[in-house]
Order: sequence, then C-alpha cells, then structure tokens
Amino acid sequence: MAKESANARLEAFCDGVFAIAITLLVLEIKIPRIGSTTSASQFWHMIIHEWPAWFGFALSFVIILVAWVNHHDFFKLISKSRVTFTYANGLLLFSVAAIPFTTGVMSEFMMSDLAKPAITVYCFGVLFHCFSWFVFLRTAMHPVPILKDEATAELVNSTIVKYNRYALFFYLLLCLLSFWLPYVSLVIMTLSWLIWVVSAIKLNSKND
Amino acid sequence: MAKESANARLEAFCDGVFAIAITLLVLEIKIPRIGSTTSASQFWHMIIHEWPAWFGFALSFVIILVAWVNHHDFFKLISKSRVTFTYANGLLLFSVAAIPFTTGVMSEFMMSDLAKPAITVYCFGVLFHCFSWFVFLRTAMHPVPILKDEATAELVNSTIVKYNRYALFFYLLLCLLSFWLPYVSLVIMTLSWLIWVVSAIKLNSKND
Amino acid sequence: MAKESANARLEAFCDGVFAIAITLLVLEIKIPRIGSTTSASQFWHMIIHEWPAWFGFALSFVIILVAWVNHHDFFKLISKSRVTFTYANGLLLFSVAAIPFTTGVMSEFMMSDLAKPAITVYCFGVLFHCFSWFVFLRTAMHPVPILKDEATAELVNSTIVKYNRYALFFYLLLCLLSFWLPYVSLVIMTLSWLIWVVSAIKLNSKND
Amino acid sequence: MAKESANARLEAFCDGVFAIAITLLVLEIKIPRIGSTTSASQFWHMIIHEWPAWFGFALSFVIILVAWVNHHDFFKLISKSRVTFTYANGLLLFSVAAIPFTTGVMSEFMMSDLAKPAITVYCFGVLFHCFSWFVFLRTAMHPVPILKDEATAELVNSTIVKYNRYALFFYLLLCLLSFWLPYVSLVIMTLSWLIWVVSAIKLNSKND
Repeated sequence: MAKESANARLEAFCDGVFAIAITLLVLEIKIPRIGSTTSASQFWHMIIHEWPAWFGFALSFVIILVAWVNHHDFFKLISKSRVTFTYANGLLLFSVAAIPFTTGVMSEFMMSDLAKPAITVYCFGVLFHCFSWFVFLRTAMHPVPILKDEATAELVNSTIVKYNRYALFFYLLLCLLSFWLPYVSLVIMTLSWLIWVVSAIKLNSKND
Repeated sequence: MAKESANARLEAFCDGVFAIAITLLVLEIKIPRIGSTTSASQFWHMIIHEWPAWFGFALSFVIILVAWVNHHDFFKLISKSRVTFTYANGLLLFSVAAIPFTTGVMSEFMMSDLAKPAITVYCFGVLFHCFSWFVFLRTAMHPVPILKDEATAELVNSTIVKYNRYALFFYLLLCLLSFWLPYVSLVIMTLSWLIWVVSAIKLNSKND
Repeated sequence: MAKESANARLEAFCDGVFAIAITLLVLEIKIPRIGSTTSASQFWHMIIHEWPAWFGFALSFVIILVAWVNHHDFFKLISKSRVTFTYANGLLLFSVAAIPFTTGVMSEFMMSDLAKPAITVYCFGVLFHCFSWFVFLRTAMHPVPILKDEATAELVNSTIVKYNRYALFFYLLLCLLSFWLPYVSLVIMTLSWLIWVVSAIKLNSKND
Repeated sequence: MAKESANARLEAFCDGVFAIAITLLVLEIKIPRIGSTTSASQFWHMIIHEWPAWFGFALSFVIILVAWVNHHDFFKLISKSRVTFTYANGLLLFSVAAIPFTTGVMSEFMMSDLAKPAITVYCFGVLFHCFSWFVFLRTAMHPVPILKDEATAELVNSTIVKYNRYALFFYLLLCLLSFWLPYVSLVIMTLSWLIWVVSAIKLNSKND
C-alpha cells in the first residue's frame, strides 16, 4: 500500500496550486510604463497610487498563507486518502484560486463609490472558502475518519470541526453586514486574519 | 537503480504542469477596472456577466482535476519508467495544457451565435486529451508492461485500457454530434465529467 | 551530510521552473473575443490563423521537455553538489526560461517578410541554451567530478560532454546559416528535436 | 513527530513560490507583434530596444537565485519548525515575490529622466527583502534556536546573523545614497550580487 506516497503527491500538487494562487495578485500590480509620466512627483504619485493593489496582494497573500498552514497542519494528522476527500480537496483548491479575484475586486474598488458591492464580493469569497473547508473536513471525518487514530479524530472533532462551524457562521454574518456597513465588515474581516496569525503564534509560544 | 526516485521526479514535474494548467483560466476572469462602471447595479451586472468565464474556469478545473486523479492513481501501479513512456507522458501534459484554451473558447462563445463552432473546439480538445491517454497507456503496456506485476497488468488491460477505448469512441461521437446539435454535445460532455466524479466516489464508498 | 536531500530540493526547484517555462507560450495563444467575429467561417479562420502560435507552443514544449529529460537523466548520475554547479544550473534554468521568448518571436514572424531575423533569434536562443549546458557540464566535471563514481565520470566524458560539443558546433553553424537560408536552418533545427526524441526512443527500445 | 516531512513540505511550497517569482519578469519581455515593424533593421532595433527588460529579468533572476541558494542552505541546518518561523518564512516569500516588481520598475525607467526615483524603488525592494531575512533569522534563533544542535546555532549567530546585519546597514546606505547618486547606488547594488556569487564560488572551491 503506497498510501504515504499517495498523500505526498497530493500535497505536492496542492503546494503547486497554493504557490500559484499566492503570487497571482502580484500580476495585477502593473509596472508603470515609460512615457506615462514625466516628473518625479508624478512617478511617486503613480507608485503610491498603486497601494490598493499592494494591499490586495498582501491581503490575499496572508489569507492563502493561513490556508496553506492549516492545510499543511491537517495533512500531518491524516494517514490515508479517499476519493471523496481528494475531490473535496479539489474544491478547497478551487476556492483558494478564487481568493485573488475576490480580493482583487475589493482592493480595486475600496476607495471608490462602489466599495459596498466590492466588499460584499470579497466577503462572499471568504465565505465560499470557509464553506469548502467545511466540505473538506466532512469528507475527512465521514463515514469513517481517515485520521491517524481515534484520539486524533476526537481532537479534530472538538477543535477544528467546531471552529470551522463558528467561522462559517461568523463570515455569513459579515457577508450580510457588508450590505449595510461595508467598511465595518472589511475591517473586521481583515483584522480576523491578523488575529488568526497572532493567536496561532501566541498559542504556539506557550507550547514551545 | 534509482527507478523509484526517477518516477518521483517525473511526478513532481507533472504536478507542476497540472497545477499551472488548472489555475490558468482564472487569469481569463478579469477584475473589472475602476471607472468602467459607476452604479452598483451596473457593477453587479459586470460581475454576473462574467459567469461564462467562471463556468469555463470551473469546467477546466474539474477536467484537469479528474485527469490528475487518474494520472496519480495510474502512477501508483507502475514500478519503472521508459523513454517512450516519458515522452507519451509529455504528450499527455501538452493536452492538459491545451484544455484551458479549448474550454475557454467554448465558455467565451457559448451564449453567442458562434456557440456551434466553439463547442466543436471544446469537444475536439477533450477528444485530443483522451487520445493522448490512449498513447500514454499504450507506451505503458507495450512492448512489456512497466507495471508492478503481471496481475496488475491484466487488471489495467481489462479496465483502464478498455474504458479508454470506449471513451475515445464516445468523445468522437460527441465531436461529430457537435456539428449538428452543439448544445446536446455540450450538455452530455459536461455531464460526463460530473458522472465520472460521482461514480468514482460511489465505487470508492463501496470499497471503503 | 544531507547531500541526497540537498539535490532533491534542487531538483524540485528546477522542476518548478521547467513546469512554468513549458506552459508559458500557451499564454500567447489568445482566446478570440466575442464580437471580434460574426460568422462561423470567420471564427474558424481565426482559430486556424493561430496555428503559428500553436506551432511555437508545441515546439517550445518539445525543446523544454527534451531539456527536462536530459536534466533528469543527468541528476540520476550525480551524488553531490557544489556552489559552482548550483549557479551553473541557474544559468541553465535562465536559458530554459528564455526559450519561450525566442521560439515565440520565430513563430510570430515565420510566415512574414521578417522571417529571416526572427529565425536567427530562435537559433541563437537554442545556441545559448546549448552553451548553458556546456557550462553546466563543465562545473559538474571540474575540478573533480561530482558524479557517483569514476566509471560514470568517464562514461559522461566520452558521451554527454562530447555530444554537447558537437551540438554546440552544429547549432553555431545553424545560427550562421540562418543569415542566408533561414528556412533551411529552421527546418534542420526543428527536425533535430524530432530526431533527438526518436533516436532516444529507438536507443532505449534496444536496451529494454 | 513528522517534523522532517513537515519541513519537506514547507520547502516544496517555498520552491513553488521561488520558481514562479524567478520567471515572473520574463512575462514583461513582450514578443513584438506582426505588423508593428516592416523592415529587418527596425525588427532588430525592437529586439535590442528590449535590453532593459532583459537586464531586469536577468537581475531579478540572479537576486532570487541567490535568495533560493541561501534559503536552501539554511534549511539544511534546521531540524524543527515553529509557527512564528512559518509566518516569517511567509514574509520572506512575500519580499521575494515583490523583487520582480521593484526590479522591473528600475529596468523600465533606468535609461530615462526618471531613473532616480526608479532606482530608489529598486534599492528599497532589496532593503525590504534583507529586512525580511532579519525577521526570518530572528524567529529561527528566538526564543530557542530551531537548529540541529548548539554548535550550529553558534555558527549561524557568528556568521549568517552577523552578515545579515551588515547587509541591512549596507543596503540602507545604498537606499539613502540613491536619492543623490542613483547610478552609483545601482552599480554598487548590482555588483554586490555578482560579488556575492563569485565569493560563494571562491569560498566553496577552497573547501572542495
């Protein structure tokens, strides 16, 4: 049974898709063309004017990095694979590949009159990603967990699976909120990634 | 003999090409530019108007994901390599890299007057991919199978090789049909991927 | 000494660059836009009109595939690494990343009045790639071969190193010839890749 | 504890991002379009006119290759991972993905009146990359080094960590200098990469 190597290759393929998705929005940051500007102050204005594109790139980078870290940590817990799991993993990769688009739309319009619908698109992109984690976790746990042992399965059920449900509910609320108070949704959503990273670091320092 | 590691690197290279091809059509989904729209309803119209591009991306994603799963399952059965096999594998990767183009043409034109030729292009793209599997399987089985053992070789001959021939015949029929009834071809072709995924999941649940 | 794993990672990085370079020219094959054509015959004309782009993609695919196969075969022979070798390998990757550009220029202009200079660009691209192999092989053999053992080093010296010098001389001639008889250079150069693949397959079938 | 495989996957993911970043600027070298030129001399002029784009591509290639070699060498010294380290590694990848942009801006404007601000952008890009190495090294050494053993930790502290601080100071000076003497900064910065490669090769030849 080449189950270990089977997952090794699944991980390698996922890493490829993650690596492409995480660098995708850098393509949206256009190098200014010669002739498009003549004075240094205009040049700096153009570079600084690109900041929403940089914000979008940095934000999608963080979101996909967090997704990669979680994906990578979860794969350390499983010991076999399953067809439903492989395809649910495909759905997860699809939602990861969609993050640069939804984040890019938001960063393009966030300083304009159309910030409201653009932020809604961004929030739904994150909600879809969170939903794909829900499907991914479900196929990993049902009908029989593909985890290493019983104890790991129970731990996953009482932590990751539970947190995913909270996150699903939380992001759904942010999606709805974005119809009325888009900037509040945007700030909470963006802070949620920073809090995630900081709390993961803090939790880990304790165990260190 | 470093045969195991030889295939490990062949797989890593293939995974890279698969990962790029599967994310390629996301580049076709353009982020709307600031100034191209002024009202929220127009913004939503632009986002929704992109649905054929999303359909094309999702469809090419599913086709290439199925190809990757099959490729990955087949590599678990083989134990050595061969120059003809390496180059046939290259042909398979070439046909995978062509899928985003043929699927993209179809999704661009499927709601227009030119749906008929565009669907024909899509069908021939799939037929070419199926033909490259035929060459790939042939070089793996001839003159001597590179599979793990005799039993595996017989199993592959009576299942994968046979199904590939049926698929070749089936997709050829859909290509011809697309000249008269393009939408029928499109629906059957697209359903065939969903049926493939669902039947693979069902088959696997039984064995679970 | 983690030498085995060191090369494993070097190979993984190279595979990434090879995988990107091999799929790069597919981005040059533009999906025709809705509205750019209204009749089916015009649509087919546009699709068929893209054949030089397809030819360029297929050709750069074959060139880079052959380079990958050679790279992969050579790495099976070496057992350690060296800083000069790592950087020479970088030069090789650079020349691989340049192949899509030089091949793309040629395929864009090969049916026009400017075929002559475009074919020269293509020939020099291949010459540069061949030269980077020369540097790569030199750093692998000097001052002390990094190959598995003495016998392998002698075999490499009497085959790969020698063939590389012949190839360097041969491609230099084709570069010079391209200034007078561009199409002859183009046909010989393109045939040389096919002959390479076919002869590799024939040689291998004998040993099988 | 699957710590070895954990880092294996972290390396694979990084290799994907490095491979994409290193080939990114090749997309900036546009294949001239048919019809944009009619005479051979004009064709050559267009090809040669692209030299700043080639210079930018080659330069970002060298910078990222050096970063990859250092990253790869450093990972051979560590034996475990840590959440802070994973995220600091993400910051490092972010700065690597930004190199093609800052280098591309510089190469686009370096022959124009706007060379000064463009070179400043390039210098700050390198400074940011150097700073991300500072953070990366700090998380690897604090609170407890994740290196293989005590001796390695001391060696890293007295070499890599120290050199990184010198580099940080050196690049900061070049950034400031670029406001007054941009071309001097550009030449010193660019030479610093060549000196780095040459000195690494020389150092290695001695130990060989």
